Amino acid sequence: MQIGLVGLGKMGGNMRERIRNAGHTVIGYDTNPEVSDVGHLSDLVDRLDGPRAVWVMVPAGAATQHVVDQLGSLLKPGDTVVDGGNSRWTDDERHAKELGARGIGFVDAGVSGGVWGLQHGYALMVGGDEEHVERLQPIFHALKPDGPYGYVHAGGVGAGHFAKMVHNGIEYAMMQAYAEGWELLEKVDSVDNVREVFRSWQEGTVIRSWLLDLAVDALDDDEHLERLRGYAEDSGEGRWTVEAAVANAVPLPAITASLFSRFASRQEDSPQMRMVAALRKQFGGHAVESAEKA
Amino acid sequence: MQIGLVGLGKMGGNMRERIRNAGHTVIGYDTNPEVSDVGHLSDLVDRLDGPRAVWVMVPAGAATQHVVDQLGSLLKPGDTVVDGGNSRWTDDERHAKELGARGIGFVDAGVSGGVWGLQHGYALMVGGDEEHVERLQPIFHALKPDGPYGYVHAGGVGAGHFAKMVHNGIEYAMMQAYAEGWELLEKVDSVDNVREVFRSWQEGTVIRSWLLDLAVDALDDDEHLERLRGYAEDSGEGRWTVEAAVANAVPLPAITASLFSRFASRQEDSPQMRMVAALRKQFGGHAVESAEKA
Amino acid sequence: MQIGLVGLGKMGGNMRERIRNAGHTVIGYDTNPEVSDVGHLSDLVDRLDGPRAVWVMVPAGAATQHVVDQLGSLLKPGDTVVDGGNSRWTDDERHAKELGARGIGFVDAGVSGGVWGLQHGYALMVGGDEEHVERLQPIFHALKPDGPYGYVHAGGVGAGHFAKMVHNGIEYAMMQAYAEGWELLEKVDSVDNVREVFRSWQEGTVIRSWLLDLAVDALDDDEHLERLRGYAEDSGEGRWTVEAAVANAVPLPAITASLFSRFASRQEDSPQMRMVAALRKQFGGHAVESAEKA
Amino acid sequence: MQIGLVGLGKMGGNMRERIRNAGHTVIGYDTNPEVSDVGHLSDLVDRLDGPRAVWVMVPAGAATQHVVDQLGSLLKPGDTVVDGGNSRWTDDERHAKELGARGIGFVDAGVSGGVWGLQHGYALMVGGDEEHVERLQPIFHALKPDGPYGYVHAGGVGAGHFAKMVHNGIEYAMMQAYAEGWELLEKVDSVDNVREVFRSWQEGTVIRSWLLDLAVDALDDDEHLERLRGYAEDSGEGRWTVEAAVANAVPLPAITASLFSRFASRQEDSPQMRMVAALRKQFGGHAVESAEKA
Repeated sequence: MQIGLVGLGKMGGNMRERIRNAGHTVIGYDTNPEVSDVGHLSDLVDRLDGPRAVWVMVPAGAATQHVVDQLGSLLKPGDTVVDGGNSRWTDDERHAKELGARGIGFVDAGVSGGVWGLQHGYALMVGGDEEHVERLQPIFHALKPDGPYGYVHAGGVGAGHFAKMVHNGIEYAMMQAYAEGWELLEKVDSVDNVREVFRSWQEGTVIRSWLLDLAVDALDDDEHLERLRGYAEDSGEGRWTVEAAVANAVPLPAITASLFSRFASRQEDSPQMRMVAALRKQFGGHAVESAEKA
Repeated sequence: MQIGLVGLGKMGGNMRERIRNAGHTVIGYDTNPEVSDVGHLSDLVDRLDGPRAVWVMVPAGAATQHVVDQLGSLLKPGDTVVDGGNSRWTDDERHAKELGARGIGFVDAGVSGGVWGLQHGYALMVGGDEEHVERLQPIFHALKPDGPYGYVHAGGVGAGHFAKMVHNGIEYAMMQAYAEGWELLEKVDSVDNVREVFRSWQEGTVIRSWLLDLAVDALDDDEHLERLRGYAEDSGEGRWTVEAAVANAVPLPAITASLFSRFASRQEDSPQMRMVAALRKQFGGHAVESAEKA
Repeated sequence: MQIGLVGLGKMGGNMRERIRNAGHTVIGYDTNPEVSDVGHLSDLVDRLDGPRAVWVMVPAGAATQHVVDQLGSLLKPGDTVVDGGNSRWTDDERHAKELGARGIGFVDAGVSGGVWGLQHGYALMVGGDEEHVERLQPIFHALKPDGPYGYVHAGGVGAGHFAKMVHNGIEYAMMQAYAEGWELLEKVDSVDNVREVFRSWQEGTVIRSWLLDLAVDALDDDEHLERLRGYAEDSGEGRWTVEAAVANAVPLPAITASLFSRFASRQEDSPQMRMVAALRKQFGGHAVESAEKA
Repeated sequence: MQIGLVGLGKMGGNMRERIRNAGHTVIGYDTNPEVSDVGHLSDLVDRLDGPRAVWVMVPAGAATQHVVDQLGSLLKPGDTVVDGGNSRWTDDERHAKELGARGIGFVDAGVSGGVWGLQHGYALMVGGDEEHVERLQPIFHALKPDGPYGYVHAGGVGAGHFAKMVHNGIEYAMMQAYAEGWELLEKVDSVDNVREVFRSWQEGTVIRSWLLDLAVDALDDDEHLERLRGYAEDSGEGRWTVEAAVANAVPLPAITASLFSRFASRQEDSPQMRMVAALRKQFGGHAVESAEKA
């Protein structure tokens, strides 16, 4: 099968390779000419036989919107666009409508796998109409891991990104769970070797997981994580998960706590705790630390 | 009425003055001879007519235990000890038993009021048997604020400190509430004058309170709280409140979040967020900040 | 001064009365003819001398949008619309733009006071350009409480509703704080009289507040709150506060916990806890309760 | 090697079988004569050659204390007791001291594996002095899973149970993470098949784990978990994890949120939300639901 692939960064580049390894034809386009197969997006479209399929793998938001707009002009009725980036599910609904007005199909695909996907396959959560999803099966099959898992047609347009978003929300809380446990073990004197405790958990326990394996790898590299700062970015999906929870009146205390911990990790000094300190000083004459001392 | 008062620090010293202003006789003892009325604790006991009442106002834990032990030896059956410090309610049960074995009564008194108590009175939450509590009424009356509020006999031994502990737990969450709101208002561009927003809330709103008044005082002194660090101690009662919640299977999400925010405020760098950063690096090749950069 | 007032429900009706009591002329319109002063919104506009001011006091969202749209057609350049409802601050920006294109000014006003406002005054948090806000001063003055507090011009368009929204977020966490403390006190045996503990806190404590006074009123009416269900709606502002926090990367753990507690209070049975129960059953053979038993 | 095993319930019985399968001699004692190998605990001691090792596998708290007390009388200097139950780490310190005074060694072993342990092995986290731990290696080897993982000597007395406790705390938050994600997916209309989304995550994702596998098993058995109530017990370790966090000033927001969610799941009606409802009624005339309607 032929497919166009727009965006050949760390993810897109590896995905091109995995699809090609499965015997398919990939025409890749990137604004970086060193990795691009064609000079212009229009060249990519021209080199595909109709009905075309073009996979978009660029940053969510403005960049994805720009590519979708361009493809809306370049593609023909019967063609299909797949958004494999980390778009918000609400963007999918708009994109499907915009492209649908021109007879172009739209599929959203949440993609998990990171740097491990090239070798082990990418988990795919897909949303869209059956007819559009069906056409892409050879590509999905090429990308997904071997075995029975790693692919789902989750529902209509937006369901793929929604499922991937919730996946990331769960991921936030799982990472937070291990992190909290690790800090507590490191804090107490009685436990001599926290790294070996984590390593031992890799078999026979309720909490064994791939993330635990990665935690052990990280501790093998830097036993007390002294070469890192306690600073964590968040990537959009965590925020959107909380927004979706609020919109749907679903309580997500652990996932939200994990997101807020990341927010706090990026503050040099906490404004809200300055207010708490100020109030303590006002009513109790409690000692506070001045900013100068910091 | 006569009363002995052990511990003449910031709280005890002011309380001595307020009780004396009400016309009672206070014999105060402190290890600091500059403020003490007598040279030894035994002198204090000697100068009181029986049945004696001695109010202990020293730090919770070892210091209180030490004074209770000494008073157990010095006092006589029919005398009464009041622990007005911030003891854990479980200590009260032990102290009551130890003193009760010698025929000495025990009353626990949670005292609120801070630096404002001398002038406006101290709120008192009292626990103990009716007979012991009854004897102390003149002193409680002298200490409490004027008007119908500010005093309660909450229940048996320990109930006074338990009620005061819950008061402090509520206080933690209320301070956190204002602090969170303040940070959000300070963060957004559209609100020009957060201090004036806080000031305006002092009348007509659902959230008007004494703590809000103090917040306005603090902002008048330092509009953006730039002279403080976001660093807040916790004083025992917050922790005990969470422990009591865990022991009684009562969910306290807001109070506990407030306590944890204080814990986090005192960390230079968050160990758990180092683990989160390490995991993100492992699976995604996400950029992390090295400790060197910090 | 003359003012038009659209929406004469519980809030709007009382506000009309308070403004009239201050000597101003109010032309009120409501879809309910029993309370309306005019038959049609156009009549209201006709009866005001230019430059007109019309205060909109209808539910946020579609109802407010509908009235703003109508006023956009009926009013003239130089007139001013005040949205005193509970609109999202993002709606304000759109309304200001829509009306501004026709030369009509826009002011947003967050109004606090509930059923107590008629007598004691309404706290007002106002956003908009100085020229539009200035014109409304006589009305703001009539509505606000006596004394120095209860009114603030918080910033540009949207700042009034944003400040009111944060006020409500703080309110959520303060209510949660008292509620958590109350449940813990009710749960333990040692505290005999929780209502009297709450009552005593009304003077001399750090946590005295108007909400505490209301809590005592509620307990006087129903000592153990046995006539109510543990069921709490949320009114929009709480959700928006969390959304604003997520958008601005500000951690709000206590306010968010309070919102989530309300979400959970409205669930007959918690789906997520069914999953937790299912997982416990899978790995441990732990006893679970079947739905039939519920 | 010979070992005595006290407590032959679901866990102990399977452990006896696994140890015997490895070729060791197990003398088991249980108060239930149908499963016990001997009639009295003293018979068990008599049938072991010195220096003896006795593994205690009974409920934490009073039952474990009772067996430890009895073994203290029955065993000889040089013998060793292993507590494999779910004791609090602070109990270990006391037990080690009590037994140590008689020359008897003490080892604490946190055991994970539940109903799966007989076949796949039990993960063991062990605390105690090297000399006592060393003697038990053949038994630990028999119980643990095959392969390099599943056993750790975590530190001195108490470290084994402390590590197991933290394991369970992490487990609480991981279960909560999946549960929250599942509820959100079930709530939205766009995702058609939540079970298949969960199934797909079992390969290629960041969140693949044994718990996820169990979640899929549970959903295969009861797709929407309609046969369960949202009711979850907690087993001690979750509470102790929060207590240890509070004692060590380590913030554990996600783990604590998970514990509190379990507490709330067991309440027919939430007292604290009755207070929130009461406050809303007081200040706003908000509609509340009466208990009669519930």
